[in-house]
Amino acid sequence: MIAVDWGSSAVRAYRLSDSGSILERRTSSAGVFDAGERPFHILLEELVGDWLVVGEAPVVMSGMIGSRRGWAEVPYRRCPARLSDLVTGCLEVRWESRRAWIVPGLECRSAAGAPDVMRGEETQVLGSAGGLPDSSLLCLPGTHTKWTEYANGAIQRFRTSPTGELYRLLVTQSSLITGRTDGAIDPAGFTAGVERAAEPGGLLHHLFGVRAAQMTGDLSEEAAASFLSGVLIGHEVNDLALAGRPVHLLGAAPLTALYRAALERRGVECIGLDPDAAAAGLFLIGSAIPGAS
Amino acid sequence: MIAVDWGSSAVRAYRLSDSGSILERRTSSAGVFDAGERPFHILLEELVGDWLVVGEAPVVMSGMIGSRRGWAEVPYRRCPARLSDLVTGCLEVRWESRRAWIVPGLECRSAAGAPDVMRGEETQVLGSAGGLPDSSLLCLPGTHTKWTEYANGAIQRFRTSPTGELYRLLVTQSSLITGRTDGAIDPAGFTAGVERAAEPGGLLHHLFGVRAAQMTGDLSEEAAASFLSGVLIGHEVNDLALAGRPVHLLGAAPLTALYRAALERRGVECIGLDPDAAAAGLFLIGSAIPGAS
Repeated sequence: MIAVDWGSSAVRAYRLSDSGSILERRTSSAGVFDAGERPFHILLEELVGDWLVVGEAPVVMSGMIGSRRGWAEVPYRRCPARLSDLVTGCLEVRWESRRAWIVPGLECRSAAGAPDVMRGEETQVLGSAGGLPDSSLLCLPGTHTKWTEYANGAIQRFRTSPTGELYRLLVTQSSLITGRTDGAIDPAGFTAGVERAAEPGGLLHHLFGVRAAQMTGDLSEEAAASFLSGVLIGHEVNDLALAGRPVHLLGAAPLTALYRAALERRGVECIGLDPDAAAAGLFLIGSAIPGAS
Repeated sequence: MIAVDWGSSAVRAYRLSDSGSILERRTSSAGVFDAGERPFHILLEELVGDWLVVGEAPVVMSGMIGSRRGWAEVPYRRCPARLSDLVTGCLEVRWESRRAWIVPGLECRSAAGAPDVMRGEETQVLGSAGGLPDSSLLCLPGTHTKWTEYANGAIQRFRTSPTGELYRLLVTQSSLITGRTDGAIDPAGFTAGVERAAEPGGLLHHLFGVRAAQMTGDLSEEAAASFLSGVLIGHEVNDLALAGRPVHLLGAAPLTALYRAALERRGVECIGLDPDAAAAGLFLIGSAIPGAS
C-alpha cells in the first residue's frame, strides 16, 4: 500500500507492507499550497512513481489534498466519526490507468453551533487509537493545533487553535519582536512566557507585554520570541478545561516538547504517541476500502 | 505654541492660541517609523516651517518621537504620573537656533511586575482630564489600544492590547481570512464576532473559528474580516474587569464606534471625548515648562 499524508506545506509518503509496517518513507515540500499549476498526479508520480510502476496498491491519501485547493474536494464528515465513516467517505480519483482514494476531513460544532474543521489529523488520531485508553484527549501541535476527544471508537469532537501560525506571523511581521531571532527556543524565555500566561490580563494584553518588556529591558531581544511562544502555548493550554486528564501528544519532537513543557508546568501528565500515526491510519482505511487492493 | 503629536505612522501638528484653542492643524505621513534617513528637524520644518519663521513658540512634541527610533530617547516616567511629572520629564532638543521639547512616555507595572509602556497617550489622557470625573477609565483605541485609569489628578496605571496590529496582520497575512476584504466593516459580521467572543473556548480557538466558518459556509468571505474584528475587540473587552464602570472613549470615529458597539453590547456605558486631546495636553505641558515661551 502507498500511504500519503499530503498537507498544505509538506508531503509524507509511506510504502507499507501487507501488515502495515513501514518499508520506506519519502518526503517532499510540494504541499497543497505550494504545488503551483502542476497537476497533483504528476507530483505524486514524481514522489512515488517507482512504487506505482511495480504495482503497489492501493494509494490512500489524507490531509489538505482533499480540500478545495487540493486534488479534489472531499466533503467533511460530521463528528462523532469512527474509522468506518472515513472509509465510506473516501473519494476515488483516477488518472490514466491509475486510481487513488482521498480520506475526508471532519467537521464538528460547539454547543453554540460554531464550526471547527480538520483535514489529516482524523487519520492520525484513528491510526493511534489502538494504543489509547477508551476516553482520551489528544493534542496534535502544529500550525493549527488540534485538541481531539477520542472515545468509544470515535472522534467525538475537537477544537483548533492557530497557535503556530500566529507565532510565526508575530515573530516575523509584528512590532512585538523588536530584534532578530535565530529560531532556536530559549527554555528560560519560554518558561517565563508560560508563567506570564497564568497571570491576569488576557492573551491580547500579554502579547503587548512582549514588546513592552523589550522596551524596558526586562526581556532580551534574544529571548523575546521564546517568551512569546510561551505566552501563546500557555494561553492555549489555559483555555482548556483539562481537569487533571492526561494529554496524548502526537507530532514531531521539537514542537511537542514545548507543549509537554507547558502542560507539565500546569501539572498535566503527557504521553507521547508514535508520530507516524498517519501511516497507521491510512493503512487501516486502505485495508477497509472495498475492492481497493 | 506649536503642538506636535508625532506617532509611529503619522504626525499631527497644531498651532495654538495663547488660550490653547486650535488656530490651524496639519498632518503628515512622516511618522517615526517612516521617516527614513532624513533628520527629524528637517521633517518638522517641512511641516510647520512657516509657523517657526514667524516665531511661534514653544514647540512641544509627544509620541514615538521620544522613543529610541525617534528624535531623541526620553526616559519613561513611572506611574502614577501627573502633569507635573510630564513637565519635569520633558527633554529639550536643539537644532540651528531653534529648540523644542519632547514629552516623556510612561511605564507601569502589573501586580506581578510585568511592564507596560505608552508614548503619546499620556498627553492625550491628561489633556482630557479637565472634563473627567475624579476616577475614570479611558480607552484609546488604535494599533496598540490603551486602557487607562485616571484618578486623583494622575494616570494611575494602564494596560495595552495590540488589537489593531493583530487585526491588520491577520486580515492581510494569515490563513484565517480566505478571501479579499475591502476594509469596510460589516456591522452584522462584527456583532456576530463580539457574540462569539462571549462563548467558551478562548481567543485562540475563536480565531481559528473565523477560518473554519468560511470553510463550512457559515460565514461569507465578505463578512469574515468584520467577524474577526468583533472576535478580537470582544475578547479585549471581556478581559477587562469593568464591573459596570463607564468607559471614556478617546480617538477617531471609525474605530471608537467599534469599541462603543462592543462595550454597549456588554451593557457598558460609553462617553466620547474630544479626539484633539493631544493638543490640549501639549498646551498644558508647554505652558508649564519654565522659560519655554
